[in-house]
Amino acid sequence: MTEMRTLKVALLGCGNVGAQVARILIEDADALAARTGARLELSGIAVRNLGTKRDVELPQELFTTDAETLVKDADLVIELMGGIEPARTLILSALSNGACVVTGNKALLAQDGPTLYEEADKAGVQLSYEAAVAGAIPILRPIRDSLSGDRITRVLGIVNGTTNFILDQMDSTGAQFADALAEAQRLGYAEADPTADVEGHDAAAKAAILATLSFHTRFALENVHCEGITKVSAADIAAAKDAGFVIKLLAIAEKLTDADGGEGISVRVHPTLLPREHPLAAVRGAFNAVFIEAENAGELMFYGQGAGGTPTASAVLGDLVSAARRLVLGGPQRTETTTGHVPALPIDAAVTSYYIGLDVADQPGVLAKIAQIFAENGVSIEIMRQTIHRDAESNVESAELRIVTHRASEAALAATVEAVKGLDVINSVTSVLRVEGV
Amino acid sequence: MTEMRTLKVALLGCGNVGAQVARILIEDADALAARTGARLELSGIAVRNLGTKRDVELPQELFTTDAETLVKDADLVIELMGGIEPARTLILSALSNGACVVTGNKALLAQDGPTLYEEADKAGVQLSYEAAVAGAIPILRPIRDSLSGDRITRVLGIVNGTTNFILDQMDSTGAQFADALAEAQRLGYAEADPTADVEGHDAAAKAAILATLSFHTRFALENVHCEGITKVSAADIAAAKDAGFVIKLLAIAEKLTDADGGEGISVRVHPTLLPREHPLAAVRGAFNAVFIEAENAGELMFYGQGAGGTPTASAVLGDLVSAARRLVLGGPQRTETTTGHVPALPIDAAVTSYYIGLDVADQPGVLAKIAQIFAENGVSIEIMRQTIHRDAESNVESAELRIVTHRASEAALAATVEAVKGLDVINSVTSVLRVEGV
Repeated sequence: MTEMRTLKVALLGCGNVGAQVARILIEDADALAARTGARLELSGIAVRNLGTKRDVELPQELFTTDAETLVKDADLVIELMGGIEPARTLILSALSNGACVVTGNKALLAQDGPTLYEEADKAGVQLSYEAAVAGAIPILRPIRDSLSGDRITRVLGIVNGTTNFILDQMDSTGAQFADALAEAQRLGYAEADPTADVEGHDAAAKAAILATLSFHTRFALENVHCEGITKVSAADIAAAKDAGFVIKLLAIAEKLTDADGGEGISVRVHPTLLPREHPLAAVRGAFNAVFIEAENAGELMFYGQGAGGTPTASAVLGDLVSAARRLVLGGPQRTETTTGHVPALPIDAAVTSYYIGLDVADQPGVLAKIAQIFAENGVSIEIMRQTIHRDAESNVESAELRIVTHRASEAALAATVEAVKGLDVINSVTSVLRVEGV
Repeated sequence: MTEMRTLKVALLGCGNVGAQVARILIEDADALAARTGARLELSGIAVRNLGTKRDVELPQELFTTDAETLVKDADLVIELMGGIEPARTLILSALSNGACVVTGNKALLAQDGPTLYEEADKAGVQLSYEAAVAGAIPILRPIRDSLSGDRITRVLGIVNGTTNFILDQMDSTGAQFADALAEAQRLGYAEADPTADVEGHDAAAKAAILATLSFHTRFALENVHCEGITKVSAADIAAAKDAGFVIKLLAIAEKLTDADGGEGISVRVHPTLLPREHPLAAVRGAFNAVFIEAENAGELMFYGQGAGGTPTASAVLGDLVSAARRLVLGGPQRTETTTGHVPALPIDAAVTSYYIGLDVADQPGVLAKIAQIFAENGVSIEIMRQTIHRDAESNVESAELRIVTHRASEAALAATVEAVKGLDVINSVTSVLRVEGV
């Protein structure tokens, strides 16, 4: 048997995921070599601060603050620093040196993906990033390879564990958003500054990556309409529950065809009502899942842990072994050429069902007036339910109206809501939420 | 732009799946070419009988009965004839000619996989078979590539839609097996001769393939212990339901470590009790799902349509485009080398929990006697529940005893059941079923 080739692996960043990747590369070296056909030698770990205490015991001599030198000498580079710089410069430098790169940096990919993909194409090396979306769940490779002979029409993803945990808490305990967030922070599911999660930014970056692979066209963060969950109230959750729905923060990418047959992709993140029997509705706590509709395959769902050091390390190592296997085999690397040029649609073009909650005067003729406005704006009502409340003290009656529409455009819905607000019988519009999966 | 290369695709077989593959190759030719980098030209369709009427309208001139000649001239061969011969000979001939082969032939792979894999290795070409397991669900590629840096410890799959439909019917309507089977046949979910499905043979072939990829060792059908669902009674389902379980036919492959640290793989198919809250319990009707436990990734689930012409065609085309992309890129093909040599374990070595139903005499001391026998055989009881029935006419009381054990070996359980049967207080052992997911 000939001696096995050694491939040098540079690790950039040693946080939660990086430390687990390093541990597995060392502990499982023999098994990884058997599966790869080459020894994967961890040549160094670049960190900002050599003195930082880490959860995992790793050989001190591997650590360096000189990421640039480490990258120059590597066959494979794993970037897990996060953030835009210096990650971007280091990845570009690695690619132009002919090294394969594995990254989990969703923010960088969503902001500057096209530059990175082009550099990888030019250098003829692989840039892989399974860990950037939905942690341990193998989702990008199935989309790119397994569904390459099909046409994906829609992707719905629960891709942020923090917000799923919070919404799940609100759903099961009736808590308000602030209390559920505090609980998530206490349990370590939310960071001290939860903005990136609760405002939907993290999910929006993942939506851009999912849309890019699903529709063979490069989408960036600016193409993603993004609404977080901070305005979702306990009352919204209760009303949804009452109507047989659960509220999830979904990353959505779907193909829409306009009246002239023109195609476009709507990419968006927002709180969404889902029927309780939808497969995504059962995804609880900090788990992630991605639901895909394809012309031939029909409905598919991928479920698993969306975060955490060890699960995410599994995705990083899968990419690493796959890239290394190709280096061992030789021949050209496969690069990420995209073939489509479908435009990204503005949020106004999105077509979905809506749930609308209204606080209305309890007078005869109110329902007729409201229904008239919906009809004038071309928004068809599927369900309308009125509940009368009587204040025990004042004896004043008020009415709550809940409407679920058929599919309508965002523009038509906005015009409808605006017109409804102008009615004198309307006290307030209590909620407007989108509905999927019906 | 240089002219695009053309790759000749030979299709063997034009049943339900084959006809859809042909249709998509023709209808989506431009999109497939854009994604592949080469035109995929359907050079012919080999069938047994030119006169057979087909659901899909296809150009008559493509059809031939001369499969051998068709294969000789192809860059890519799709085998969807099913059965052992002539599929086996044609695949071997295609591989030795240097053609990439895509097949959905689980029976052939399970029986003679090693020969095919070796021929593909030797010829340096790809043999892919995503469609052979769980239809449209991308499961083999994620196992082989995405989880290549992880260690799978257990695979639990609902991989046969017919039996899942039947068990689901029995669960939701209380029907007996025979009636649920008749209903499945009426609706087209079961064939006139349902043996391969209801006896578990189809699932066993898929279990062998899943085990081979998950544990990097070649397993064949003879390594799979197989029990079908024909003996599952309405009473079993009702008792399981009552205890919070659902009964599913599972394909199971799991790594077991014996007391001396020796590792082996238990590969088996049998009716299994699953807690109702387990993700696989929610897989209804003819859907399929595969649940994977890996050391680092944790729990993953893949869900979708397990059969049907169009969904399965999606998997075939995914394999075809992936193989064609590599032909376009050039360089060595990746082949399926396996690296492990973990022994297959006999069913006696399987370790699982058990559900046991006993019809016992209603006498004092019965429970103690039974518990004693379990203890003597080293099988620990988790739950024991006794229900007393009184026959209104005879006024005779009988008792039903339901026991769920902790994990125990198949051998210990068999010895326990044998000893229990010998007790004079036992009228009959009404059911012995394995339990997973607890």
